Amino acid sequence: MTKRRLFSPGPTEVPWQVSRQLAQPLIHHRTDEFRQIHRELVEGLQWLMRTENPVLVLTSSGTGAMEAAAVNLTGPGDKVLVTVLGKFSQRWKEIAEAYGLDVITVEATWGDPVPVEKVREALETNPDVSAVFTTHAETSTGVLQDVKAMAELAHNHGALIIVDGITSVGCEELETDEWGLDVVVGGAQKGVMTPPGLSYLAVSPAARERIEHREHPVYYFDLARALKSYKNWDTPWSPGIPLIIGMREALVMMRAEGRENILRRHARNSQATRAGVTALGLRVLASVPARCTTAVVIENNRAESVKKYLVKKHGFQIAGGQARLKGKIVRIGHLGYYYEADMVALMAAFESTLFDLEIIDSLGPGVEAMLEVYRGK
Amino acid sequence: MTKRRLFSPGPTEVPWQVSRQLAQPLIHHRTDEFRQIHRELVEGLQWLMRTENPVLVLTSSGTGAMEAAAVNLTGPGDKVLVTVLGKFSQRWKEIAEAYGLDVITVEATWGDPVPVEKVREALETNPDVSAVFTTHAETSTGVLQDVKAMAELAHNHGALIIVDGITSVGCEELETDEWGLDVVVGGAQKGVMTPPGLSYLAVSPAARERIEHREHPVYYFDLARALKSYKNWDTPWSPGIPLIIGMREALVMMRAEGRENILRRHARNSQATRAGVTALGLRVLASVPARCTTAVVIENNRAESVKKYLVKKHGFQIAGGQARLKGKIVRIGHLGYYYEADMVALMAAFESTLFDLEIIDSLGPGVEAMLEVYRGK
Repeated sequence: MTKRRLFSPGPTEVPWQVSRQLAQPLIHHRTDEFRQIHRELVEGLQWLMRTENPVLVLTSSGTGAMEAAAVNLTGPGDKVLVTVLGKFSQRWKEIAEAYGLDVITVEATWGDPVPVEKVREALETNPDVSAVFTTHAETSTGVLQDVKAMAELAHNHGALIIVDGITSVGCEELETDEWGLDVVVGGAQKGVMTPPGLSYLAVSPAARERIEHREHPVYYFDLARALKSYKNWDTPWSPGIPLIIGMREALVMMRAEGRENILRRHARNSQATRAGVTALGLRVLASVPARCTTAVVIENNRAESVKKYLVKKHGFQIAGGQARLKGKIVRIGHLGYYYEADMVALMAAFESTLFDLEIIDSLGPGVEAMLEVYRGK
Repeated sequence: MTKRRLFSPGPTEVPWQVSRQLAQPLIHHRTDEFRQIHRELVEGLQWLMRTENPVLVLTSSGTGAMEAAAVNLTGPGDKVLVTVLGKFSQRWKEIAEAYGLDVITVEATWGDPVPVEKVREALETNPDVSAVFTTHAETSTGVLQDVKAMAELAHNHGALIIVDGITSVGCEELETDEWGLDVVVGGAQKGVMTPPGLSYLAVSPAARERIEHREHPVYYFDLARALKSYKNWDTPWSPGIPLIIGMREALVMMRAEGRENILRRHARNSQATRAGVTALGLRVLASVPARCTTAVVIENNRAESVKKYLVKKHGFQIAGGQARLKGKIVRIGHLGYYYEADMVALMAAFESTLFDLEIIDSLGPGVEAMLEVYRGK
């Protein structure tokens, strides 16, 4: 038996305060008691996402909410622009193609953000683009994109801007209303520290206008129906009741910590992790790193060995590379319920693992560099 | 404060053995540990549903799995037959219409099953029907349908038979393989005593053949993709991990009780409840009652008052009528974790409520008639 320590960029560690809520005797959802809980959860998400837009909570993983956004905000044959910089932003493209949209792709090397300038050019070449689908933090590479600038481009173009914020909500600077983001999609099992099974979307007035005139076939993810139920704090279908109660509790904890404190903690964890792995002589994949996860390049296709050794010997469950990055990187999650002590413990085990596997030849510099960051001020 | 007692036909009471599983430290789903749990859950569901077909577990409520079945097994413009006998069977019609199918509806008065003879006639008149969508137990009326006979008709016709078993799995006689059911859809929050947030489908070889040639656009509910992941006990998207662990535990409990014992218990609870309400001078809505829930007619539109008084005074959360039955019936759930003692306690409170509201003028006959059934043998 090894003590479990979940450090993946999703699902992330769930605080006991949230876990114990899941074990409560089940209540029925067609009750005032549930409606009040739903309302409090939504108000918490609005606070976190900096929006006064409705936030619709769906019983699905984040991919379901991505599909809901695409299906409800576009019509057959619409031309849309998608930024692709890794596995999860690639998903926008796959969803758009599944619905027969005319997809303009602006790509970046995995490890880089898509340059805003390339998006501008693509929009100029394609004046009939009606929606831009982009990704705030790309989980597969740990890269942050300038969503604010992309939103400006989309708006100047008269297009909607739809953002995958699944790994950025509760971690990155995100100003849904100030930046005019039409849809921001989130998931439970990320910065909001809840097990997977729920997703959510903030929908702007312009997005709601499109939703009312939806053309694609849809039923479970019909957002017009969800918006109608939302008026009474109901959901169209039986919702994931325990997770809704758990996520509400997570937001109570987050409000107690304070939004700025949470973002600062994530920035510090991210900076410290980068300092640690760099001191070990390893390279961080992301040229513009997000705060959610640090993707570390492991040479000679030994990333899976590192991941497996780390969990087996020390119990730390980190993530490996996906698709074309499989075997080439490991991803350390620090998104959600992680503090200095957690990161230091992880780094010591990580260093020890690399040493045991003869990838590095001395112990100490990782933890030392990390602590320097934490003690910096 | 009133002690809570959940007696709705979904969500149903969750045993503490299941609840406590939800509060476990979260594990990652891309691990052998999760795959083993997923496998055990599937094997449990196969045991319960009497099938060797793959059972795909989706992170959505039951409606999502219904949509998944419809989208993956039909093509645009296909002619399908739907039996409509209440609010939930009506949903098959709505889903089919949302996807532009040519829908032949065979209806029954709410409270009756759709006569098999009417289905036979409709199939004869419409030789090009490629799939029959039906409902085993209609939750809104408490009516049971003869799915076995309908399956025979569909097969003789060369059509697929797709069954909503959401409120029948773990409660009614259901022989998925023996009856040749191509799809049976289930939900977590019903007979399998788990909170809502998961659904599942058993898919026959003929259904899998159609899935491989799907034509409608779909992404999250792409069952070909789910089947591919299933081969390694994976899921395409982040699954509802705690609910999967909880539902596995529920199936361990069910196997310990035994399938025949569970079905007999449900039959007895259902029979005793009907005896009780009949002795009170009330009418059971269903002409062919299912074992999952008893819909009781309350005259003079007083059903909502009964429901509210019962939960406020005694803590028993039953369900009211839906759509055209709103205000006209209450529905007592006895689907899942309910035993004689639970039903007797419910009946005493129900009787007391009706007496306080001056709907009946003497106390006692309901509990008495119920106990006669339980003591019968």
